[in-house]
Amino acid sequence: MGETPLLDRLVEALRCLPGVGPKSAQRMALQVLERDREGALRLAEVLKAAVEHIGHCQCCRTLTEHPLCRICVDMHRDRHLLCVVETPADQMAIEQATGFRGQYHVLLGQLSPLDGIGPEELGLDRLEARLAEGEIQELILATGTTVEGEVTAHYIADMARGHKVRTTRIAQGIPLGGELDYVDRGTLSHAFSGRRDL
Amino acid sequence: MGETPLLDRLVEALRCLPGVGPKSAQRMALQVLERDREGALRLAEVLKAAVEHIGHCQCCRTLTEHPLCRICVDMHRDRHLLCVVETPADQMAIEQATGFRGQYHVLLGQLSPLDGIGPEELGLDRLEARLAEGEIQELILATGTTVEGEVTAHYIADMARGHKVRTTRIAQGIPLGGELDYVDRGTLSHAFSGRRDL
Ligand SMILES: [Zn+2]
Ligand SMILES: [Zn+2]
Repeated sequence: MGETPLLDRLVEALRCLPGVGPKSAQRMALQVLERDREGALRLAEVLKAAVEHIGHCQCCRTLTEHPLCRICVDMHRDRHLLCVVETPADQMAIEQATGFRGQYHVLLGQLSPLDGIGPEELGLDRLEARLAEGEIQELILATGTTVEGEVTAHYIADMARGHKVRTTRIAQGIPLGGELDYVDRGTLSHAFSGRRDL
Repeated sequence: MGETPLLDRLVEALRCLPGVGPKSAQRMALQVLERDREGALRLAEVLKAAVEHIGHCQCCRTLTEHPLCRICVDMHRDRHLLCVVETPADQMAIEQATGFRGQYHVLLGQLSPLDGIGPEELGLDRLEARLAEGEIQELILATGTTVEGEVTAHYIADMARGHKVRTTRIAQGIPLGGELDYVDRGTLSHAFSGRRDL
């Protein structure tokens, strides 16, 4: 009876989820216990299984419970196109928003020598091996537009150049439907200097 | 390999939590797998234990993993005061916001004959037994100010009257710091008719 009540421990444990503060953790705990115990039990089971079985694809490093992910084993994906992203979330966003049908390399980070994150931590040895195989014709750099994202993109572009693989960078500019005066100056400047003939 | 990937099942399972849509479920799944597997495993364990062990207090019906909750076994709480609330969340809000040191009865709902929720479903037989014991001197009705909440409050007030127990209702009015023109008309009307001498 002296230990922390289970309900308090549940509220605390829910805070491992991003965006969940003390108030919403309490609301979540009470609501699942009062209204959806079946769903809560399923969540507990799937969460445990996910942590225990989901690792990284041996080829592209995205999250998967298999040695190779769905995309890497899919023989219908274009093996001449390789897109480099920072996170599995970025990869999902591209899968959901674009018609890209090539393959991926997921960095799981950005180059950051001061934090001890070098080429090896981003699996760039593995990426270089794929480039060396000679099948890839275009390497698309879809890393973020932060300073670290740009540094990472340039490092990889240099590597691809060494293997004579064409490298492209996703376009930066005004978001679709965006009004010029709501866009930050850096984006506007990029969009202006990246202008094309119509 | 043909079955739904574990990651997709995790995103789906997270949606049992209130306020979690497809987008935030995906963000949660990716983030815990990439950054906090230890926290996710702890959440899975505590969630399972909570669902399996947390039931309702035999006395006041709030959520607890013991036969009686912390408040009901606390001999320092005032046994002359009993506060009636609709949910464990309401009870927690009162515990956190007020200096109330009495006991509770948690209805776990509101009277709603059309939905088959009668006095028995709200544990009112148990509440009546407590009133009959003669120890309670004031019954505080802290049910919601919805129509169902008012109906429930009146039903319980009648019951308390039968046992000659003084019954009070928490005040309705303008929220602290609230400006009159931001308050809904019903609240303003209640506040006006409930005015007191200064
Ligand atoms: Zn893969
Ligand atoms: Zn209790």
